[in-house]
Amino acid sequence: MQEFSTIDGGVTAPLGYRACGVHAGLKASKPDLALIVSEQMASVAGTFTTNRVQAAPVRLCRTRLAGRRASAVVVNSGSANACTGPRGMTDAEKTAEITGELCGVDPAHVFVCSTGTIGKPLHMAKIESGIRQASACLEPDGGGDAARAIMTTDTVPKEYAVEITIDDVPVRLGGMAKGAGMIEPDMATMLAFLTTDADVDADALQRCLTAAVGDSFNRITVDGDQSTNDTVLFLANGMAGNKVLNARHAEWSTFEEAVKEVATQLAMKIVKDGEGATKFVAVTVAGAASPEDAHLAARAVANSALVKTAWFGGDPNWGRIIAAVGYSGAEVDDQKVDISFDGVAAIRNGCQCPDVSLADLAAIISRKSFSVKVELHQGSASDTVYTCDLSHEYVRINAEYMT
Amino acid sequence: MQEFSTIDGGVTAPLGYRACGVHAGLKASKPDLALIVSEQMASVAGTFTTNRVQAAPVRLCRTRLAGRRASAVVVNSGSANACTGPRGMTDAEKTAEITGELCGVDPAHVFVCSTGTIGKPLHMAKIESGIRQASACLEPDGGGDAARAIMTTDTVPKEYAVEITIDDVPVRLGGMAKGAGMIEPDMATMLAFLTTDADVDADALQRCLTAAVGDSFNRITVDGDQSTNDTVLFLANGMAGNKVLNARHAEWSTFEEAVKEVATQLAMKIVKDGEGATKFVAVTVAGAASPEDAHLAARAVANSALVKTAWFGGDPNWGRIIAAVGYSGAEVDDQKVDISFDGVAAIRNGCQCPDVSLADLAAIISRKSFSVKVELHQGSASDTVYTCDLSHEYVRINAEYMT
Repeated sequence: MQEFSTIDGGVTAPLGYRACGVHAGLKASKPDLALIVSEQMASVAGTFTTNRVQAAPVRLCRTRLAGRRASAVVVNSGSANACTGPRGMTDAEKTAEITGELCGVDPAHVFVCSTGTIGKPLHMAKIESGIRQASACLEPDGGGDAARAIMTTDTVPKEYAVEITIDDVPVRLGGMAKGAGMIEPDMATMLAFLTTDADVDADALQRCLTAAVGDSFNRITVDGDQSTNDTVLFLANGMAGNKVLNARHAEWSTFEEAVKEVATQLAMKIVKDGEGATKFVAVTVAGAASPEDAHLAARAVANSALVKTAWFGGDPNWGRIIAAVGYSGAEVDDQKVDISFDGVAAIRNGCQCPDVSLADLAAIISRKSFSVKVELHQGSASDTVYTCDLSHEYVRINAEYMT
Repeated sequence: MQEFSTIDGGVTAPLGYRACGVHAGLKASKPDLALIVSEQMASVAGTFTTNRVQAAPVRLCRTRLAGRRASAVVVNSGSANACTGPRGMTDAEKTAEITGELCGVDPAHVFVCSTGTIGKPLHMAKIESGIRQASACLEPDGGGDAARAIMTTDTVPKEYAVEITIDDVPVRLGGMAKGAGMIEPDMATMLAFLTTDADVDADALQRCLTAAVGDSFNRITVDGDQSTNDTVLFLANGMAGNKVLNARHAEWSTFEEAVKEVATQLAMKIVKDGEGATKFVAVTVAGAASPEDAHLAARAVANSALVKTAWFGGDPNWGRIIAAVGYSGAEVDDQKVDISFDGVAAIRNGCQCPDVSLADLAAIISRKSFSVKVELHQGSASDTVYTCDLSHEYVRINAEYMT
């Protein structure tokens, strides 16, 4: 992957976006409502949870995405507006309506996202007063405040931005994300918002986002739980002044790679801030019979409670890794499996390497970040899933995060 | 299900079985080798892990099961003899050979099981001295010692036995099991050994065991991890003096129910002793479109880290339950879902019941044992999975259980 110039900020790093984060009162004291507004109508792309139980704002965004145009995104934390009955959709629509009126944009071009507890209806008076407050304090450098307002169990806000050159003009891409638990491939309790000032064809934007999400947000897992509210939205407002980008543009691949880079960096930030996580682990399965097998096996290892607690304990327990590969459903012959940690071979052909000490392997597992590679020798497919360990803190957070 | 007369003991409760448990030295100080010997050649049935990575003793048992005859079972804890290369099978065969010689039975009728750390070859000198020691101390009431010798992270030995009447003669069924972690439907790090003094046709015995395991050991989960070594063996030595049992025998269903009862009771003991478990939970999904859907949904709820930590925290968080049903793959319309705890409705039609307080629900979740029922209103299929909560202690045990 090519190198990109990182720049400060997140969703307001590109030209023509203003944002802010305020305390609407849905949470006791922390910021809980974020607003992003584009000066010009933007093209929009989106991807959503595949959970069959979908929150009202997810259903609203899906419908609005057909129009391919967005002017604003409003996001609340503190309540997921999921399993709230017919009222949930009415409240989501009303949220868009209030935002449109107060920001002077067509409510049909307002996208709405929610994150927080399932089953609690939105407190609409608080939502309305929060949007009123937010619409009055939008700033061209307000991305940081917005990133803080969408946090739930996150411990740090998550932003990333890069600058590239297209048609000899600078083009910026920025983004913010939230998510720390209920994280699982194919979208999770995570929200991510990407912006660019590039001019991009709407269909090309969607294809580009779908591909980037497939390689980033859909390759991370914290606990294997998938949420009802996951959403990634990508706005492109064209203010950079480039010629419209699509697959036929000579610099399309530069743009694609930059989108992938921003999405990947944000996804990594989510795993690193995984609930209770003390370690960041890249699990690669190579030599699989098919891409599906590679993904199944990598995901089984990355989601195994036994594997993740061993990592927390600093234990290079490769037996739990090979057991997870065994039950993943992937084709495997254990007498052909190699496993290595940060490139140091632990087992070859399914048996412990005689020339490596457990102490050496334990030293790798004690690192804050390390990689696990499983070579199946069944074919040529490979896949990587990013995950974290399972600690006491995960249990504490989720035992104490009361309904 | 009918009532059974429970009797003391486990695998030696039926006539004609002797057993013992000894310290062979595979573990530092605890008993680690169990031996069960039948006075008469027994019919044998077995079920095994579906993990594609299978330990050498599992492969040996599978092969020997074709002969349908068993005289002895030898079990070691402390090493799983999985991922030990070609040496693994040689060691398993040698274990059977030594046992056969020392117990005076045909080595081809000796079954071998192992549990413990993956990847560590058996210490054959210790195995041999352990079998020598065990063969000298077999007792007709040695089942309890055997049950203790197969424990790994178990905190209590697990035995159960019942007596029924067949052909007007008393017939006994007993069993022992081990397992506390790596527990997942379709077999897990669990071993169970059932014995009976009934005379049972070998094919009927296998069908009976397969059905009973499907309703018991395959309906429990602790952490969703599936092991390389899971085995259930069932020996029937015919010493009770009944006429040979098969599906045409008038009292076949009595026998079938008794087998199911012993298997279910042992399975429940495994969940109740789940690593770090503080609560026992029966998760039922009803009104599913198909039996597969019911099982998928019940299993997703029972395996969700978020649901299980909420239970540990005493939180009646139904949002995490419906989210798990949503990603399970089962057909679901969240606006039709009802969820109740010990019969008290929490949500109806996907929305929180206005007439129940969270405090009332929290009081149920604080019980040592409770049930969760999810009604999907999609069809008439139902399934129940038994599980436990996810506590700090689970993390501690598995972070500290070093390779």
